[in-house]
Amino acid sequence: MHQDRPVILLPGVPQEMEALAARFVVPYLRERTGRTVETFTLRTTGVFESQLHERIGNLPVKWPSAALAYLPSYSGVDLRVTVAGSDAEQVRAVAERARRELLERVGAVVYVESHDTMEMVVGRLLHERQLRLAIAESCTGGLLAKKITDVPGSSQWFERGFVTYSNAAKVQMLGVSATDIEAHGAVSGQVCEAMARGARQVSGADIGVGLTGIAGPDGGTAQKPVGTVFIAVSLADGDTVRPYRFLGGRSNIRERSAQTALDLLRRRVLALPLDARLPS
Amino acid sequence: MHQDRPVILLPGVPQEMEALAARFVVPYLRERTGRTVETFTLRTTGVFESQLHERIGNLPVKWPSAALAYLPSYSGVDLRVTVAGSDAEQVRAVAERARRELLERVGAVVYVESHDTMEMVVGRLLHERQLRLAIAESCTGGLLAKKITDVPGSSQWFERGFVTYSNAAKVQMLGVSATDIEAHGAVSGQVCEAMARGARQVSGADIGVGLTGIAGPDGGTAQKPVGTVFIAVSLADGDTVRPYRFLGGRSNIRERSAQTALDLLRRRVLALPLDARLPS
Repeated sequence: MHQDRPVILLPGVPQEMEALAARFVVPYLRERTGRTVETFTLRTTGVFESQLHERIGNLPVKWPSAALAYLPSYSGVDLRVTVAGSDAEQVRAVAERARRELLERVGAVVYVESHDTMEMVVGRLLHERQLRLAIAESCTGGLLAKKITDVPGSSQWFERGFVTYSNAAKVQMLGVSATDIEAHGAVSGQVCEAMARGARQVSGADIGVGLTGIAGPDGGTAQKPVGTVFIAVSLADGDTVRPYRFLGGRSNIRERSAQTALDLLRRRVLALPLDARLPS
Repeated sequence: MHQDRPVILLPGVPQEMEALAARFVVPYLRERTGRTVETFTLRTTGVFESQLHERIGNLPVKWPSAALAYLPSYSGVDLRVTVAGSDAEQVRAVAERARRELLERVGAVVYVESHDTMEMVVGRLLHERQLRLAIAESCTGGLLAKKITDVPGSSQWFERGFVTYSNAAKVQMLGVSATDIEAHGAVSGQVCEAMARGARQVSGADIGVGLTGIAGPDGGTAQKPVGTVFIAVSLADGDTVRPYRFLGGRSNIRERSAQTALDLLRRRVLALPLDARLPS
């Protein structure tokens, strides 16, 4: 065994390990090796890994000493680029070029250039614009509210949430019309829009979000299979409603629904195209 | 390399790997080795690992070929016993003895003898008794509703949720008295009880649960530090409210709060002692 080979022992508790690694181990190794490593992450949502791959193609081959990793999860695909080398300036230049070229191709679906979550991004946006939010959710059953309030300080932009699981709750809490529920079904664009508008108007918030769908495993029909979800955003200047069809099991569908609702809200507030789509 | 040494290749997707392992790999290995392995899990919540350890002591030493593992998480400590041997009957007898002896000592905090979650246990209980539930939550911000609706079919026992993050929401949605909020604070037993009662009465459900607290990182005071949480359960025959002080960061406090609310609800419906405590 080499005498100069360091052994680093870290505690098993994830939080402690991460903090110690970030504060002590990484700087120590960086100094010891004399190598520069630049890494950055672009987080995307709303498109499949295969669609990103189609647009990005073999672009990474042209970046010297750089590697691109596709990191898919239920809530989207992260693109992580790592550039390593002994020439710090060159490493940074390659990283910057990679970032620029990636954004040119897939920037339309990138919601943040860091490890921040979608709910952090949306929270900052609402806070900056002094907009208060109320939400009405059915099939996500509280998950959307939970995500929004995961962010410390969220009481500054989150007013309240309605978890209207039953039809009676939709009618009584949000003023959704029972006739609309009967005519179009609780999972419909009409009811979803009424939920978003009701959440906004009943609460006095600036924005209302509505979400209704079929998370499964039961409740699907031929016309509205499991995974059918409607999401609406209501502002004083008008309402927006979008239909989606998500694949996967119950928790997957709920996770994608909540993430997509946050992205639709973000797009609406920023006046971006409402659908996550890559330019052709 | 031995000719009779099997190599088993499994896909990397967790769900697929687990299903294949359970259905094919485990039975195959069991048949191949001729050994019997019995394993069972007792899930506990509301007490620390150290408290369980104090009560259980060196009991496992007396069980032949058995091992006890303490598996702690934010929502409780699982006790997993594994017994292995070539005599199937003896293995089963040891497992049964271990189960009986553990339950004698710590059964008071065991909520299920399987891998089922607390929300599954509570869901089954409410479904069996035909009780419908409404909840009002503040610091957990939708997490409690999310957990309840993680369970397929939960629309049969979950009526609705109120995520009353602002004081205005508590007053308007649940009929909490603004005077009470001013006098006792939004994080108080009085307000918590009014939230639970309001959730029940406004919705017409059989049971109301209220939850209010300080999840941090900000908002704590000397009298009510971060981690102070009140949980109430309201039924037609009376209300119950309990104060708690949870340790840890924001997500930890929220997780423990939701889990404890479900356990308090379970204890109240089953007419068990309301506090999770080991007999001395």
